[in-house]
Amino acid sequence: MTQVAEKIQTAVDELVVLLGDRVSTNPNVRDTHGKDESWHHPHRPDAVVFPKTNEEVSEIVKICAQHNIPVIAYGTGTCLEGNVIPHRGGVVVDLMNMDQVLRVSQEDLDCTVQARVTRKQLNEHIKDLGLFFPIDPGADASLGGMAATRASGTNAVRYGTMRENVLALTVVLADGRIIQTSRRARKSAAGYDLTRIFVGSEGTLGIITEVTLRLYGVPESMASAVCSFDSLEGAIDTVIQTIQLGIPVARIELLDDVQMNAVNQFSKLDYPVKDTLFLEFHGSETGVQEQAELVQAIAEENSGGEFKWTTKAEERNKLWAARHDVTYATKSLRPGAEIWATDVCVPISKLAECIIETKKDLKESFLIAPLVGHVGDGNFHLGFLINRDDKREMEEAERLNDRLVMRALALDGTCTGEHGIGLGKMKFLTAEHGEGVSVMREIKKALDPYNIMNPGKIFSV
Amino acid sequence: MTQVAEKIQTAVDELVVLLGDRVSTNPNVRDTHGKDESWHHPHRPDAVVFPKTNEEVSEIVKICAQHNIPVIAYGTGTCLEGNVIPHRGGVVVDLMNMDQVLRVSQEDLDCTVQARVTRKQLNEHIKDLGLFFPIDPGADASLGGMAATRASGTNAVRYGTMRENVLALTVVLADGRIIQTSRRARKSAAGYDLTRIFVGSEGTLGIITEVTLRLYGVPESMASAVCSFDSLEGAIDTVIQTIQLGIPVARIELLDDVQMNAVNQFSKLDYPVKDTLFLEFHGSETGVQEQAELVQAIAEENSGGEFKWTTKAEERNKLWAARHDVTYATKSLRPGAEIWATDVCVPISKLAECIIETKKDLKESFLIAPLVGHVGDGNFHLGFLINRDDKREMEEAERLNDRLVMRALALDGTCTGEHGIGLGKMKFLTAEHGEGVSVMREIKKALDPYNIMNPGKIFSV
Repeated sequence: MTQVAEKIQTAVDELVVLLGDRVSTNPNVRDTHGKDESWHHPHRPDAVVFPKTNEEVSEIVKICAQHNIPVIAYGTGTCLEGNVIPHRGGVVVDLMNMDQVLRVSQEDLDCTVQARVTRKQLNEHIKDLGLFFPIDPGADASLGGMAATRASGTNAVRYGTMRENVLALTVVLADGRIIQTSRRARKSAAGYDLTRIFVGSEGTLGIITEVTLRLYGVPESMASAVCSFDSLEGAIDTVIQTIQLGIPVARIELLDDVQMNAVNQFSKLDYPVKDTLFLEFHGSETGVQEQAELVQAIAEENSGGEFKWTTKAEERNKLWAARHDVTYATKSLRPGAEIWATDVCVPISKLAECIIETKKDLKESFLIAPLVGHVGDGNFHLGFLINRDDKREMEEAERLNDRLVMRALALDGTCTGEHGIGLGKMKFLTAEHGEGVSVMREIKKALDPYNIMNPGKIFSV
Repeated sequence: MTQVAEKIQTAVDELVVLLGDRVSTNPNVRDTHGKDESWHHPHRPDAVVFPKTNEEVSEIVKICAQHNIPVIAYGTGTCLEGNVIPHRGGVVVDLMNMDQVLRVSQEDLDCTVQARVTRKQLNEHIKDLGLFFPIDPGADASLGGMAATRASGTNAVRYGTMRENVLALTVVLADGRIIQTSRRARKSAAGYDLTRIFVGSEGTLGIITEVTLRLYGVPESMASAVCSFDSLEGAIDTVIQTIQLGIPVARIELLDDVQMNAVNQFSKLDYPVKDTLFLEFHGSETGVQEQAELVQAIAEENSGGEFKWTTKAEERNKLWAARHDVTYATKSLRPGAEIWATDVCVPISKLAECIIETKKDLKESFLIAPLVGHVGDGNFHLGFLINRDDKREMEEAERLNDRLVMRALALDGTCTGEHGIGLGKMKFLTAEHGEGVSVMREIKKALDPYNIMNPGKIFSV
């Protein structure tokens, strides 16, 4: 046995004493926990554990700390940048048994959940109270994972991201200490913002075990709309003017012609194959009507085509089902391919320029990549359809992504709006943050001096 | 000369080489920079400097670091917990020459300002563009200071606090490095949230020199309303139901009977001397009317009195002038007295309980303390009118404040909603955050290992 294998065996023995049969070294279980939903290459962890309580997570981390073994928290594995791939081995902490909604307050519009509660599970739990949680990254991700990735999605233009909607966290630190990052008050000026140090830290500073979240009352009325444009500029000017006027759109999504073609085919729809905005409005009945009519007028001024809007639940659901199915629609363009999803976000005034230049690149490339964007935030994704074992395709996707990211940074944007750094964006971190990265490293070193918490993510060391 | 005096003299000599006559050791100038607007006792700094650029701030910090001398950033000195008082001496960095609006983007609804631009100055600058910046802590504070204190105020219930409205900061670190905490994109998942590590850090981790802020379009219509209640519960239930229904009130402020009496006398008004809500609505004309009517109906159900609402600018301004003058109105109750402002914030469902118990304490005390609250956030202030040189009064204010804070913490609230820890709330930090305080200390130590940045604030060491 090597020294490494020995220390892992010792740690596993100790974990078994703690957790009994809730420790697995079964190769299939390890394989399942060695991947995410991205193109990044899987890597098997040494063991997978299934704690039930904060205290068990703490004991697990203490054991790993004692033997200097990597600890990687695992929710639903739906991340897109290799964020949870245990590429240096170690112990994966699967939180699947920590899936309870701990409390809901209708009066305070907040709740506390264990980290493995998913967003759909939470919404199901609270719908009879007339409440909902708006953050929707597409996948039915765990709320702990969404907090760790600073996730957002389609509703962020109105409701913010996880950054704005997490009120407090319970976190197990690298030495096993358990902390509560904040009280439940809506605001506080009491010391450093511990909550937001952990939101977006991708498991590199600690393991999030409980999440306190803001909730919202289900709006009295909702309407959806769809409108296609002859030019990308027309669509984006519509977005800019809508936001400038303070119209509180709940969703404003752009799908380009390539994406619309895929959506039509996959969802058996007959939208024009043009750059298209999907919108949603939340509010009172008159409020929603007013919003829809205002945006309709703006779209008309920007040479938008027919503007169909509806408050009927059935039609709305059909429209958003098509939007939510873009990943599958994209995949259907090339069965068997992997998707390499890009994720830049730029100031909205730079969005048209960024997209137009990017589409020029795409026109000259042999890769296909539909575009879908949370354009109210200036965030859009290309989905490169690739065979990850084909070197030429991977190099081309990398080349295009590099150009896209450097373009976004030149426009004062970010390399990732919502997927996180994980393994895939590490090389851009310094280009984006400069000397700021050294501050991040100092914080990492202060809170995880032995680099055991999801090591090798965000930073290369 | 003592060793301390010698090293200060050496540092001042070096500062003079750097800044010429923009270094002052004049006793009057030092006195002006030794206090804030609170009851906390002033303390003279050793010198005051007036830099003009980020680079000069960096050089100042390097000189102070070399000689291990405290550095305290100073904006308008309007803080309320001794946050800027240089109680260990050192060099105060008055940013008065860094008062330029650097850029405004109408399309992106954002701007970048130097740290000493005040909120009123910014609003004056952008009003012709149809834009405004909503965060309003009362005082015409500098935006750098507001970021450092995580300030909020009357509009936070709708627009959030500085936490939500700062997009990026330029910060000079304890070793003189200058960093940009973030790009200008609306959201990002690229590494740790450096911006929010510095928002609310009260100058203990670095000096904020530039602030990038979200802006908002001036609403098409605004209405204000006022309504008094026979019971505190009626007023608070009105607030809870308003927020639960998702009515996007821009302001919802509570003034108790004692405060209303002071306001009536000071502003020559004749409101009923009862617990009273002041409200403001922003939106389209129909939206504002709808909001006002909905809240009116809710207030009626909760036994509210006459509900007067108006969109007329003159009447609105009169109403909010009265609200903004509460500090002066309070002071007029006892000319010459200081105000000791409390600042707890609790989950809104606990607000009635917290206020009612607190008013019982007040009834049994010899101190007078009007109450005003940003009740949509669960935040309220008492203004103890005290003579800070009278030991008996100070002890009584401290006793009442201790009871109030411990009550708020027991209700899952915070000792400070918006004033910060400064010197005044340090003793409550551990009661509020427990082991979290040690994480804050680890971050402080990592970023300011020699403890020169506003030392002895937030933490006692």
